[in-house]
Amino acid sequence: MVSQVIVIAGVGNGSGTGAAVARLFAQEGYTVALVSRGEGALKALASSITGAGGKAEAFPISEYSGDVMTAAFAAIQARFPAPEYAITVAVFNAAQGVWKPFLQVTPNDIRESNKVNIEASFAFSRAAILAFQSNEALTSANGAKGTLIFTGATASLRGNVTTSVFASGKFALRSLSQSLAKEFGREDIHVAHAIIDGGIATGNTRGDRNTPPSGPVENPKPAGLLSPESIATSYLYLVNQDRSSWTWELDLRPAHEKW
Amino acid sequence: MVSQVIVIAGVGNGSGTGAAVARLFAQEGYTVALVSRGEGALKALASSITGAGGKAEAFPISEYSGDVMTAAFAAIQARFPAPEYAITVAVFNAAQGVWKPFLQVTPNDIRESNKVNIEASFAFSRAAILAFQSNEALTSANGAKGTLIFTGATASLRGNVTTSVFASGKFALRSLSQSLAKEFGREDIHVAHAIIDGGIATGNTRGDRNTPPSGPVENPKPAGLLSPESIATSYLYLVNQDRSSWTWELDLRPAHEKW
Amino acid sequence: MVSQVIVIAGVGNGSGTGAAVARLFAQEGYTVALVSRGEGALKALASSITGAGGKAEAFPISEYSGDVMTAAFAAIQARFPAPEYAITVAVFNAAQGVWKPFLQVTPNDIRESNKVNIEASFAFSRAAILAFQSNEALTSANGAKGTLIFTGATASLRGNVTTSVFASGKFALRSLSQSLAKEFGREDIHVAHAIIDGGIATGNTRGDRNTPPSGPVENPKPAGLLSPESIATSYLYLVNQDRSSWTWELDLRPAHEKW
Amino acid sequence: MVSQVIVIAGVGNGSGTGAAVARLFAQEGYTVALVSRGEGALKALASSITGAGGKAEAFPISEYSGDVMTAAFAAIQARFPAPEYAITVAVFNAAQGVWKPFLQVTPNDIRESNKVNIEASFAFSRAAILAFQSNEALTSANGAKGTLIFTGATASLRGNVTTSVFASGKFALRSLSQSLAKEFGREDIHVAHAIIDGGIATGNTRGDRNTPPSGPVENPKPAGLLSPESIATSYLYLVNQDRSSWTWELDLRPAHEKW
Repeated sequence: MVSQVIVIAGVGNGSGTGAAVARLFAQEGYTVALVSRGEGALKALASSITGAGGKAEAFPISEYSGDVMTAAFAAIQARFPAPEYAITVAVFNAAQGVWKPFLQVTPNDIRESNKVNIEASFAFSRAAILAFQSNEALTSANGAKGTLIFTGATASLRGNVTTSVFASGKFALRSLSQSLAKEFGREDIHVAHAIIDGGIATGNTRGDRNTPPSGPVENPKPAGLLSPESIATSYLYLVNQDRSSWTWELDLRPAHEKW
Repeated sequence: MVSQVIVIAGVGNGSGTGAAVARLFAQEGYTVALVSRGEGALKALASSITGAGGKAEAFPISEYSGDVMTAAFAAIQARFPAPEYAITVAVFNAAQGVWKPFLQVTPNDIRESNKVNIEASFAFSRAAILAFQSNEALTSANGAKGTLIFTGATASLRGNVTTSVFASGKFALRSLSQSLAKEFGREDIHVAHAIIDGGIATGNTRGDRNTPPSGPVENPKPAGLLSPESIATSYLYLVNQDRSSWTWELDLRPAHEKW
Repeated sequence: MVSQVIVIAGVGNGSGTGAAVARLFAQEGYTVALVSRGEGALKALASSITGAGGKAEAFPISEYSGDVMTAAFAAIQARFPAPEYAITVAVFNAAQGVWKPFLQVTPNDIRESNKVNIEASFAFSRAAILAFQSNEALTSANGAKGTLIFTGATASLRGNVTTSVFASGKFALRSLSQSLAKEFGREDIHVAHAIIDGGIATGNTRGDRNTPPSGPVENPKPAGLLSPESIATSYLYLVNQDRSSWTWELDLRPAHEKW
Repeated sequence: MVSQVIVIAGVGNGSGTGAAVARLFAQEGYTVALVSRGEGALKALASSITGAGGKAEAFPISEYSGDVMTAAFAAIQARFPAPEYAITVAVFNAAQGVWKPFLQVTPNDIRESNKVNIEASFAFSRAAILAFQSNEALTSANGAKGTLIFTGATASLRGNVTTSVFASGKFALRSLSQSLAKEFGREDIHVAHAIIDGGIATGNTRGDRNTPPSGPVENPKPAGLLSPESIATSYLYLVNQDRSSWTWELDLRPAHEKW
C-alpha cells in the first residue's frame, strides 16, 4: 500500500502552525517530511513525532531559496520513493517577515523577502505540482492528486504602515496560490490559501512569523489568539475536501479579534 | 442533557444544499427544524430524516419575509423549548434568484428579492442571535454559543450582466454576514459566509437557485458540479471550528470549474 | 444646439455632495434637474444656481422609492424635452443611513433602507439608461451616450459593527453599479461608482448622510474632511473621460484619513 | 519660481502610457525626467518633447533594479537641483511581464520579475518620497508635497492561468502602493494606483507590457483599446486632486471591454 507523504516548509521553533500541522498529519497516518531552518528544533520535532508513533523525517536547510527548495524536494523524493510513497500534500508555511517604517527598509530586506516569499514559494510549488502529477492514479479518496496549501496573513489582503515589505511578499504569495488553483484544478490538483488573521499562540512571546509582533503573549486566551492545533485542523479539512467542493481561500481568526 | 437544534431556512425541493445540511446534522445528533416553502417537499424531507433515525420537524411557510421568519423561529422555540433544547446552529440558505437583462427587471422582482434576500435574512439573523445569546453556558464543545451560516454565490462577489437583482441581494447578504461576524464574535457567536461558486448537482436539471441555470445537468460530473453533501460537510466543519480559529468566509467550487 | 441635462437625486440640505455637483455642472453649462426631499432647501439651491447664471430646476419629492423616481424622471423629461434637451448625466447621491447595533434595528429600518438604497436606485438607473439610449447620436464629445454615477461610502466595501443595515444598502448599490457597467458599457453608457471614504465637510455638524456621524465638525480641516466641491470635481472628471478609458470605481478620501 | 519635475520610469518604445504621460505633463509645464531602457527610443522621445516646446531629458538605464533606480534619481536631482527645481510627481510605469504556463516558468523569470516589479519599485518609491519630503513648502496648489503613481494591470487583482509570475509582481506593486498611501498621506504625499484593465493602443502590435499580448492591433477601436493619451489624462487628474479628496485606486478600461 502506498504511504502518503506530506511536505511542510517552515516549522519555526516547533511550536507554531507548521509543527502543529506535522503532528496532526502524522496522527492521520501521513509520513511527514519537514523542511526548515534551525536544525535543532527541526530534528527535535521529528523525534517527538516519531516518539509518539508517527513517521517523520527532518530535511534541514540553510535558507529558503529556489534552489534550496528544489534540492529539498529531490532529497525527500529520494528518501521516500515511488511507488512505495506518494507526495500528496505540500504546505508552504515559510515566511520572511519585516515590519518597519518604509524609509527604514533596506535593499536587503526586500531581497530576502523576495527570496523566501516568492522565489522559494514558486520553486516549492513547482516541485509539489510535478510530484502530484506523477501520482498516476488518484491516490486519495477525495479525488485529488495532491493538495498544496499556502499560509497567508492579514497582510495578504491589506498593505499598511510598517508592512510594505511583508505585504508585498504575502500579496505575491496569494496571487501565486490563485493562479495555481485556476491552472491545476482541472488536473485534480487542489491549491488553497489560508489567511491567518490574528496572533498565534506559540511557545515564544512574539507570535508566529506570519503575524507582526504585538507584545508578550503570556496568557494566551483561547478566544483572543489562534491555536496552532486549530489551524492544523483547518488544513486537514482542506486536504479532505472532495473535488466537487474545493476551497481556494478561507480566513481564520480568533472569536474576539477586532477586525 | 440539552439537545442541540439546527434551524435551516430554505430546502427547496429537498435535493439541494439545505436538505443535505439537514441530513448530515441529523446524523450528527442535531434536532433539525426545517423552514421552507413547498410544504410537500418539506414534510417529505422531515419524514425521510425521521425514518432514518434522525429528529426533524417541518415548519412550512408561505413566503420568506421578516414577519414570517420571526414567527417561524417563535414556533420552533415553542416546539423545542429550553432548557431541554438549545438552538445552536442556524443556516440561511433561502434565496430569491432573478436572472434577466436589467431592462426586463420589474419593480416586483426587486421587491421580492429585497424581501427574501434582505428582510428575511435580517429577521432570521436577529432571531438566531437572540436564541444564541440565551444559551447561558457555552453549550457546544468548541466554545461557541451558536453558529450562523449564510449561503452565498458567485454573485456575492461580482455583479454581472443579467445579475443586477440577484447580485444586489447576495452582496447585501454578504455584508450582513460580515457586520454580524464583527459585532457578535466577541460574544462567542460565530457567523460565516460560504460562497458557492459553481453549479450544484441537484435532483432537477437547473441547479440550485443560488446559481443561474446553465443548461440541463443530466450527467453530473463529480469534478464539474458541487455535491450538496460536500457543501454540508463544509457547514459542519464551520460549526465545529473552535473559537480560537473561526472562518468568516470560504469559497467552494468544483475542481474543474473555470473561474 | 442640444442642451445637456444632468439629473441629480439627493441634495440633502444643499451643502453636501449633491449640491456641489449641481453647482459645478451648472457652471459647465449643464441644465440641472434636482430631485430631492426637503422642498425648501431644494428650491433654495435651484434659485442660487439660477442666480449665479446657471440653469436649474427643482423637482421635489416626498420620498425615495421606485415609483417616485420613475415619476420624477418623467417630469424632468416633460420639462426638458428632446430634441432640445438630452439627459446625458445622472447622479444617484441619495442614501438612507442607519447606524445602530444590530439588535436595535427595526423592520422599518430595513424596509426604508431597501426602498431608498435599492428600489429607488434601480428605478433611477432604469430611467437614466432609457434616457441615455434615446440619445440617438453620441451627444457628448467623449463618445458616451450618458454617464450614471453612484455615490458609495466606506460601508460599500466593509460591513461593520453598527452598519449592518447601511452596508447592506451600500453593498447592493455597488453591485448594481458593477452589473450596469458591464451590461451597458458596450452601448457606450458609462456607469461609475465613487467610494467616499471619510467625513464630508458640510454645512451642518453631522457630515454627509453617506458617512456615519462622528462628532461636531466645527473646524473642517482641508486634509481631514472631504470637500464636496472636490468630490464634484471628481464626478466631472468621470463624465469627461473618453470611452477608451472609463473608470468604474474610484475611492476618495482626505489625505490625513486613517484607513 | 520653482520648476516642477515629473520623473517617469518606463516609457517602452515611446508610444505607450509612459510616453503619453511625458508629453501631457510637458504641455502642462512640467520638466520631464525620463528613465527607461532603450536609449534610442528614450532620446527620441525627449527630443520630440523638446521640439514641441517642452522640457525633457533622458536618463537611460541598462536595467530596472534597486541600485539603478537610486542612481537615476540621484542623477535627476543633480541635473535639476533645488531650489530651482522640485520633484513633485513620480510615475512608476515599468513592468516585467511574463506570460507562460507555470511549469515553463524559470527561476530567472521570477528573479527578473522581482527585480523590476519589486526591487526597482521600492527603490523608486523611496527616492520619490525622500524627494517629496524635501519640498519644504507645499509646492503645488493642491496641497500635496508630491504624487507617486503606479501603473497596475488586470493581473493586479487576479491571478490566472499563465500569469503566475506577472500577477505576483503586480499584486506586490499594488500592496506597496497601498502601504505607502496609508503611511505617507498624513505627510501630504499622495500615492495612487491605476489598474489598466484592457489592451493599450500602442504603436506596435503587442499592446503595452502591462497587458498580455492578444494578437495584432491593426485597427485600434476607440472603444476597444485604451488610448495612452486618455490614461495620461487620468494621471494628470490624480496629480491635480486636492488633498481633501485623494484617490488611491481607480480602474481604467475601454467602454466595450468584457470584464
